[in-house]
Parts: sequence; structure tokens; C-alpha cells
Amino acid sequence: MEELRGNLLVAQSGGPTSVINASVAGVILEAGRNECIEEIWGGLNGIFGILNEDLVDLNEERAKSIEWLKHTPGAALGTCRYKIDFKKKPAQAAKDMDRLFEVFAAHNIRFFFYIGGNDSQDTSLKIHEEAVKRGYALRVIGVPKTIDNDLPFTDHCPGYGSVIKYNATTVMEIAADVGSMATDEGSCCIIEVMGRSAGWIAAGTVLAKRIPTDAPHIILLPEIPFVEADFLAKVKETNAELGHCVVVVGEGIKNTDQEEIGADKSRLDAFGHPELSGAANRLAEIVQGKLNLKTRTVKLGYAQRAAAHFASQTDIAESTACGAAAVRAAVEGKSGFMVKLVRLSDSPYQWNTDLQPLADIANVEHFIPRDWISADGFLPNEKFIAYAQPLIVGELNLQVENGLPRHAVLQKVALEKKLAARA
Amino acid sequence: MEELRGNLLVAQSGGPTSVINASVAGVILEAGRNECIEEIWGGLNGIFGILNEDLVDLNEERAKSIEWLKHTPGAALGTCRYKIDFKKKPAQAAKDMDRLFEVFAAHNIRFFFYIGGNDSQDTSLKIHEEAVKRGYALRVIGVPKTIDNDLPFTDHCPGYGSVIKYNATTVMEIAADVGSMATDEGSCCIIEVMGRSAGWIAAGTVLAKRIPTDAPHIILLPEIPFVEADFLAKVKETNAELGHCVVVVGEGIKNTDQEEIGADKSRLDAFGHPELSGAANRLAEIVQGKLNLKTRTVKLGYAQRAAAHFASQTDIAESTACGAAAVRAAVEGKSGFMVKLVRLSDSPYQWNTDLQPLADIANVEHFIPRDWISADGFLPNEKFIAYAQPLIVGELNLQVENGLPRHAVLQKVALEKKLAARA
Repeated sequence: MEELRGNLLVAQSGGPTSVINASVAGVILEAGRNECIEEIWGGLNGIFGILNEDLVDLNEERAKSIEWLKHTPGAALGTCRYKIDFKKKPAQAAKDMDRLFEVFAAHNIRFFFYIGGNDSQDTSLKIHEEAVKRGYALRVIGVPKTIDNDLPFTDHCPGYGSVIKYNATTVMEIAADVGSMATDEGSCCIIEVMGRSAGWIAAGTVLAKRIPTDAPHIILLPEIPFVEADFLAKVKETNAELGHCVVVVGEGIKNTDQEEIGADKSRLDAFGHPELSGAANRLAEIVQGKLNLKTRTVKLGYAQRAAAHFASQTDIAESTACGAAAVRAAVEGKSGFMVKLVRLSDSPYQWNTDLQPLADIANVEHFIPRDWISADGFLPNEKFIAYAQPLIVGELNLQVENGLPRHAVLQKVALEKKLAARA
Repeated sequence: MEELRGNLLVAQSGGPTSVINASVAGVILEAGRNECIEEIWGGLNGIFGILNEDLVDLNEERAKSIEWLKHTPGAALGTCRYKIDFKKKPAQAAKDMDRLFEVFAAHNIRFFFYIGGNDSQDTSLKIHEEAVKRGYALRVIGVPKTIDNDLPFTDHCPGYGSVIKYNATTVMEIAADVGSMATDEGSCCIIEVMGRSAGWIAAGTVLAKRIPTDAPHIILLPEIPFVEADFLAKVKETNAELGHCVVVVGEGIKNTDQEEIGADKSRLDAFGHPELSGAANRLAEIVQGKLNLKTRTVKLGYAQRAAAHFASQTDIAESTACGAAAVRAAVEGKSGFMVKLVRLSDSPYQWNTDLQPLADIANVEHFIPRDWISADGFLPNEKFIAYAQPLIVGELNLQVENGLPRHAVLQKVALEKKLAARA
């Protein structure tokens, strides 16, 4: 194995999770144990900031800040959605790549860790391939992160356990509220959750169900085409039985024509734009209109991916371990891999980390298997539950000040720039 | 003082809070200490259930269930919005009152505690007056409860501290997320919270602000008429300075014509109903349309009033104390009062309970004083902060099972009915 010494750069990309910073902590803590890693630096705002040579010295951060990263939401180093896109923008992508390797060389960066979802793993792959092509000694390892849980090959994604722990808790709490209100007519409550085209997040709220009559009573998954008549029949039936009905809907559910029901292009807002009232609002209109049933909506939005105050300790441990595993792999001479989580057993839950070639990951989406969903399509079944249950176990020891969570505040001591400003 | 012995009935009414059951626990625990109280019974679903003689024996509940009520959301005894309305439905109201006293007499109920907001205090008053008129020895004490914090005479309402603790935490977390995403154009996130015509809940999120640049950057209160141009100017200014803008909006904000902006009567949905997309959605349309700024919404809805997993320990203690104080007052011979919270000092925060005649309470709403709000109307000021800060302090020792909160499940052993079914 070639002995490589030099500096480390870690950066974050894409939408944050409530534990994305735990992976940064994992990288920093493990990096400190390896002599071949000379300096530990962070790139601000992902690739976007690295192109601007916006680097910070993470050695300057206090030990307590590093530890607190594990329960700090948002992306502590900043994030971006910037993509080096050789397909759509080949000239810009080539220019970006040149600049990136100028930055790497100027700061003797030899270990690069990019924490992100699908697009970010694709970026990591491109950087790895480019390094090989240029003969620039660089170890590139991707660290997985996404609440959507749609990365392939990994058993699940860091960030997913926390979002479903919080969402399932919220569904339990809302159900206690909704179910305690006696009305003659009944009621319906529709809770919209994230997940785009994958239903993992919506499905995870099934964990709130302890007995069959518990909420959620209906979970609408993007994997299952939405049929209005079937949905209304199920709401009606549930309401007749229980006096209320709690529905969880994935934001990206589509009708049988594959159109998202939350983006109604037939209706324009005051400014002539298609109305983006969202899936829950649309469903509420349908339920109120067709069943004349009092309906309320909840849209958790960013709250769910930032709810670090009730993150899963299992998720925090796994996210930290993924960061550490990335550093170990790089030190051992690996490059061009993503760290993945491997499940060894469901009960007791046991897991480990391993590596998957980045080339296998990029742009492959991972959906819920059809046989993990009930025949009528309205609830995940026991296979899904066995999968998801271990991921939400454990609570963090939350640091609180004056009644509110304390978050890490990084000093972000800037590195002196060595290059001219980006053209 | 007349020595009164007999049975106790406690019931809940109106929208739940995350600590409404702590007041039930307070009633039960204090009742157990008083010999003159023979049996401890609960009325299911408030007045609505009591009229149906749906009573349960709370002596049968396990001690642990009573303790767990303190962190169980929803109304554990069930709740209702049923009103004995002598103004609008005098015949029905008179009939209801007759039936109510039949139920009281049949079960020798001599101590009645009703936990609720404005309407419920009005019901308690009516029952007290009716008891006096009928010469039926009954002690009626109202126990305050409302997330809206709009009851007069009490320093604040049980339930309020918990909703603003959770909402301020959520705003902090969302702000960490939104603020970490680097974009060239900036972004806006609009978080809708409850509170109807009073802005107490929206205002409480100001506690998330530790330094002036922290979110929320704008809080839209129902007390301040919404002026679109001023709002847009403030969003633009904030975005130019910080690269993002986090707005909290009370669901009931109104324009200068006193029309709620969330209920746009000019637009009809697919079924011909006025569209109820809500204040946040409406604002998002305005911001996206007029400023061309990427805008996302969050609507916490019932989640905020049910978030027992992060309730305020101060609020739990106060809610429990209000239940206990109601029992003590009744045992001491008082009737026709509501328990209120009295603040003795801000720092260190000290409080006590006292009594206020129910006749003073009914149908009086309590709003944020204008001089607790900044001159531009966009943020509560230091007077509000001094008021609200102590109310969110302290966390509960949450009981968790398999990663999710454990809630009390009451056995609700039904009392044998002694009357014919309600006509």
C-alpha cells in the first residue's frame, strides 16, 4: 500500500438531516487518531464553497463543540445543491474540476470526505475518477446521508432513523389529541411528510401503531398510485369504526397518471403560477368535499429533518460510525467507495459498516419493496416493521439551556487563501 | 363553613394541550388526601359525556397511570366542544341543565372540576349558578387550560409554556437547517402556528432568538394588521443581510380590513368551497410571486399542542398544581371560581395559585399588550421575553419504549348507569 500523508477535507452536501453533523464529528474524531492525516479541514457549503477556497481549520474547534455536533441540526459546515454536471454543463464542469484540484493541490489535500445523498455520491465518484486520471494522489470516500433513505446497497441511510422516530412520535401525539375529541360526525387529520418519490419516511410512521386501531390508519406511499375512490372508502370505513381517521401522506404521491397530486397544474395562484398547496391540502379538500368530514392538516416540512431534540441514538451512533469508517478506509488506502451500513441481525439489532464502490451508487434510487406493503396498499406490513423498528431506538442526552436545546457553534477559523479568486 | 361530603367528578373540555392531563392528575392526587371526597370519578368527553352519564371510576386506575398522565397528550378522559348555550339554544340548554343535575344527584356528585378554556369556564359558571339556584350543594371550580394563553386574570395558561417550548425549539432547528443551505438567491421559510385571534403562541417563538440575527426574523401576530408591502420589504431586507429569512405566522392574522389572510374567499376549491390553504401558504404565494424567492412552509397544526415529548416541566408542575388547588378550594368551601396562576417574580421565577370568580372570566379574551411588541410590529420585545422565558424551563423525564414515548392508558372502568338514557 502506498503511504500517503497530507491534509484532510470534509464537507457536507444536499438537504441536512438532524444527524448529518454526527458524521462530521466521526470524521474529525477518527482523523485525530491517524498520524498520516496532518491537518483536519472543513469545506464550507460543500463543493460550492470549496471552489471558492472557503476552507476552515477544524483543529481549532473545541472538543465540546465536536461532541455537540452529534445533536446539532442543519449542516454545521454549510451545505449546497451545487452539482458538477458533465452531462448538462460539460464546459463548466471541466472548469470546476480544474479549480477543485487547484484547491486540493494548494492545500495538499489528500483525504476527501463528502457527506451527502445521491447527487453527492455522484460528485464523489467524479472527483475520485478525476484524481486517478490526473495522477493526483487522493483518497475519496463518500459518507451516506439522507432522510429519504433512498440510497442503494446500504441497509438504511444515516438520518432516516431520526426522522421516523420524530415523525412516529408526532403521529402518536396527534392521534392522542384527535382521538380524544368526541364529535357526532367524526374527523380526519392528514399529516404530510417528506420523502419525494420514495415512501420510506411515510412508511416509518407505522411504528406509532401499537394496536391495530392505533394511528396511522392510512399511509399513502408514493410507490402506490393514489386512487381517490379507494382512499375515500377507507377514510369512511375508519371513521365509522373509530370516530376519527389519521392519514399520513408522502409529499410526492401520484395519481394513476403519474401526476403528483400536491401540484395541481389546473389551478393557478394569484400570480399565475401552478398552485403548490401540497398533498395534504389537496387530500383535505377531497375529504371535506366528498365526505363532508371535518379535516385538519399538518405539514411537518423542514421540522422533521431538523428535529435533533428527539433524534435516534442508534442513528447518531451509526452516523458517527460512518464518518469514522470513511477515514479508516481512506487511511487503509481505499478510494472511490461509499461507506454503507450492513445489518447483521434484526433482534437483537446488530450492524456494521462496510464499503460499496461509488460507481454502483450514483443515480440509483431505492424504493420500498412491494411485498413490504399490505395488499390494499394502505399500510406497510410486518416485514417493513422488522426493518424499521431498531432504527429509532435510543434517546440522546440533550443539552438544554433556558429550556431550549444547545447546539454546537463552530468557530470556523478560515484558512488563508492561496489562490486567486475563482474566475 | 358547611361540611360537605360526597363524590368528585372531573372532566375535560375543548382542544387538548400537551399537559391537560397533568391537571387531571393534580385533581386525583389531591382528592385522595381529603376525607370529605368519597369517590373520584371522571366524566368522559366533558359535558357531552356527562349528559350521557358516561362516568368512570378513577380510583380503579393504577398509580403509575396517574403519574404518566403528566406526559400524556390529548385529553385522557376525552373532550368535546359541546356548549350549554342559554343564549342561542335556551330550550336545549334548560333541558341539558336538568339532565346534568339529575346525573349529579344520582351519583351524589358534590365536587365538580372542569378543565378547559374560555367556553368551559363559562359552562362552569352556569353550573355553579344553577346549583345555587336549585339549592343543590355543589362546589364548582374551573381549571384553566389553553395553548392560546387568552384567558384573563391568570398570569398565563397551563399548556402555553409547553407549546412555545416546542415551537421555539422547532424554529431553532428549522433555522439551523435553512441557514446552512448556501444559495445565490436566498430563501424564505414560513412556519404557521396556532393561536386564533391571539398572538401569544407566535410571539413565544421569539425565545429561539439568542442573538439578533437568529430566527425568527419576522413574527406576524394577529394583533397587528398585516400590510403586505411592509412585510415584503422586511423579508427582502432580511434576505439581503442573511441569505435567508425565517417567518413565524399566527394562523389568524388579518389584513387591514380585518379579513383573515389564510381564508381567501375569492378563490374556490374544486368543490366550490372557499379555499382554506392557510396563512403560511398564502404568504408563500405572496413571497414567491412578488420577490421570486424560493419559499417553503411548515404547518405544525395539532403537533404543537400534543408535543408532550418535549413539554415544559414548569408547565407540567403548574398544570398539576392548578388541579390540586381546585380541589383544595372546593374542600375549603369555595365554588364559582377559576384557579389562576399568579407570578411572584420573573427572576428567579416564582409563582403561586389563587382564585378568580368565574363571572370575571367568561368570554373575556386576553391579548398581547401593544407595548410588548416592537414599534414596527414584527417582533415581541424584551417585556414579552421576560414574561415568556420562565415558562419553558425544565424537561420531563420521558418514559420511552422501543424508541417512542409511553403514554398513560386509562382503564376507564365505567360506572353503572342509574338513569334512563338521555332523551
